[in-house]
Amino acid sequence: MKSICAIEGVTAAGIKEGKYGLALIRASGETAGVFTRNLMKAPPIRLMEERIRKGWMDAVIVNSGCANAYTGSRGYQDAITMAGFAADVLELPEESVGVASTGVIGRFLDLDRIRDQCTRIAPFLERSERAEEMAARAIMTTDLSEKHSLVEGDGFLVGGITKGSGMIAPNMATMLAFIYTDADLPLKEIRESLKLATERTFNRVVVDGDTSTNDCALLTSTGRAGRVDRSEFQEALERCCRQLAVQIASDGEGASKLLEVRVKGAPSEDQAARVARTIAESPLVKTAIYGEDPNWGRVIAAAGRAGVEFDPDSVSLCLGNGRIMLELVRRGEIVVDLPAAKAVMAGKTVIFELDLDNGDGSATGWGCDLTEKYVEINGRYTT
Amino acid sequence: MKSICAIEGVTAAGIKEGKYGLALIRASGETAGVFTRNLMKAPPIRLMEERIRKGWMDAVIVNSGCANAYTGSRGYQDAITMAGFAADVLELPEESVGVASTGVIGRFLDLDRIRDQCTRIAPFLERSERAEEMAARAIMTTDLSEKHSLVEGDGFLVGGITKGSGMIAPNMATMLAFIYTDADLPLKEIRESLKLATERTFNRVVVDGDTSTNDCALLTSTGRAGRVDRSEFQEALERCCRQLAVQIASDGEGASKLLEVRVKGAPSEDQAARVARTIAESPLVKTAIYGEDPNWGRVIAAAGRAGVEFDPDSVSLCLGNGRIMLELVRRGEIVVDLPAAKAVMAGKTVIFELDLDNGDGSATGWGCDLTEKYVEINGRYTT
Repeated sequence: MKSICAIEGVTAAGIKEGKYGLALIRASGETAGVFTRNLMKAPPIRLMEERIRKGWMDAVIVNSGCANAYTGSRGYQDAITMAGFAADVLELPEESVGVASTGVIGRFLDLDRIRDQCTRIAPFLERSERAEEMAARAIMTTDLSEKHSLVEGDGFLVGGITKGSGMIAPNMATMLAFIYTDADLPLKEIRESLKLATERTFNRVVVDGDTSTNDCALLTSTGRAGRVDRSEFQEALERCCRQLAVQIASDGEGASKLLEVRVKGAPSEDQAARVARTIAESPLVKTAIYGEDPNWGRVIAAAGRAGVEFDPDSVSLCLGNGRIMLELVRRGEIVVDLPAAKAVMAGKTVIFELDLDNGDGSATGWGCDLTEKYVEINGRYTT
Repeated sequence: MKSICAIEGVTAAGIKEGKYGLALIRASGETAGVFTRNLMKAPPIRLMEERIRKGWMDAVIVNSGCANAYTGSRGYQDAITMAGFAADVLELPEESVGVASTGVIGRFLDLDRIRDQCTRIAPFLERSERAEEMAARAIMTTDLSEKHSLVEGDGFLVGGITKGSGMIAPNMATMLAFIYTDADLPLKEIRESLKLATERTFNRVVVDGDTSTNDCALLTSTGRAGRVDRSEFQEALERCCRQLAVQIASDGEGASKLLEVRVKGAPSEDQAARVARTIAESPLVKTAIYGEDPNWGRVIAAAGRAGVEFDPDSVSLCLGNGRIMLELVRRGEIVVDLPAAKAVMAGKTVIFELDLDNGDGSATGWGCDLTEKYVEINGRYTT
């Protein structure tokens, strides 16, 4: 198994019919959640913010195709009803069933279809590779591929699935992610760990700078593996989330290349992250990557408007592809070898490493190139 | 005449040879300037920030094709030399000649070409429609059309030319603009007027959210029309700048439609402007406009992440094209007629009017759609 079903205590099922998918994940345990910061929170998010307070979930039901966003009090009631379908079929208390939706904004849920799908898939809940694949596929919208991650710690596992392709920006939450572990940790630590891991991974992915109304990340501990070392758990969780985050960036709408931006020498980690984000979000940088154009000027110009202090004359910038690292600018001096730099950009991954020479803060962000395909996908979404 | 040469005391000349253009504008008077806020200020900007302090200019020399940005102390020296060419040929004190550059970042100026072009065009300096056209064309980079504006006040004129197409964002300065008036005002008022007008017009244009290293707006008063009413002047100046700003947005790289975002009911003008900017900058909104998709959900979701307080359930949103105005959302209720809304979006101008119902602040911002053409232009810029 390659993600959630590797965790003891987790079973899953899913179905995808055209645009409309439904996933069920059954796992009892202490649960933490992080949610979108967009003021326009969708009703399922508002419901989840209430339900997550007691720190326990037994299952989640997730639909794709309709976000149940901007649907007011009827939408809120629909979210309760939707969670109720799962509670009924799984014989669970309604308040311990989580709910999430993703898809078009401003339409009501088709509750008949959701009830029907829920009833049909519930008997197939199981702990298998096929089950986690079906669940991961069910939550996809414009994603081109399922996203799985599994990390092995010392005596415990962390596994997750995610979706997210457009409307990705680092203002939590930027996608749906369902993460499970068998590590047994106090609720407080589960919450803190998820918050920190989200800050360092999902919140550092930018596809188009838009923040969704709907997105959330949940972490449930089934506790089956017993107590573990806190810092080891943190590391494993971040690794799991990072793998998912990179998959989101790689599968950005219309993306042909993954962009990794490593910033060091910033006054703080936060400021390094802000610079990384500004670069990863810049349409001029994104189109340059698409065009395999080693336009370091656009990278440094983007850094210059991030609101972080540094001396332009002492920055260094390298370009890489995961195998080779090439200097473009060395302490303010342009040392780029254009043909070599162009060649480095020909692969599927482009890495910029920027040293601001103004402190010890470092952070990595991820994005993707901007292509004609992105425009095509988003110019014709609703219709 | 349609812009700067309508102002008594202003003569101009220009030449465009392939990518490389040069403009000379001769006008003596009290002068104010606003400059890019990007940390990566190009050397000509650093020189201008010094020269503008005394508040007087006799001429400007402007080249396109090379931004003389990220060129260090040699670039700074080159900017002085370039201004010197104009000072020599026009027999002016060097310190009262302004300089501006636009084009590729990270290359040194071709001073030989600039001197040659300067010498060749200086004899053609004149006050004519042809002269202002040549100057406006000379400063274009990826612009598809010259940009002129002329506004008549009560006994005075304000006229300007501008360039700017990619790398447009509302963090002053977002382009090059050269504005002239025959109104006679104290230097202090010229400075304040330009600052406020810039804030309300140029700084509210977004093409791609990137802020240039080079851009500046200058306002010179030849004073030939005598004293004028301050508030009348402010109004005329803003009108002139707004006309130029709209032309910049319409001519955004790859743009097929102009986007106007009017926000009202915000807690303050600043906050209204922030919401307008966030909407105009959203790739999801921009692609929806390209696709003529009345996706009001994306507009409101963008507003929701602008960091401004409002109640999603009491916002109203209208869609227009300059002739018709159509309600999409009325105080939180969706009232959109999709086919009618789609039809309204078929023209060259798309207007969103958003009422946040949370105060008296209002502001208008401008942008354009995001098209495959933008990607094509920026994916192959340097090469």
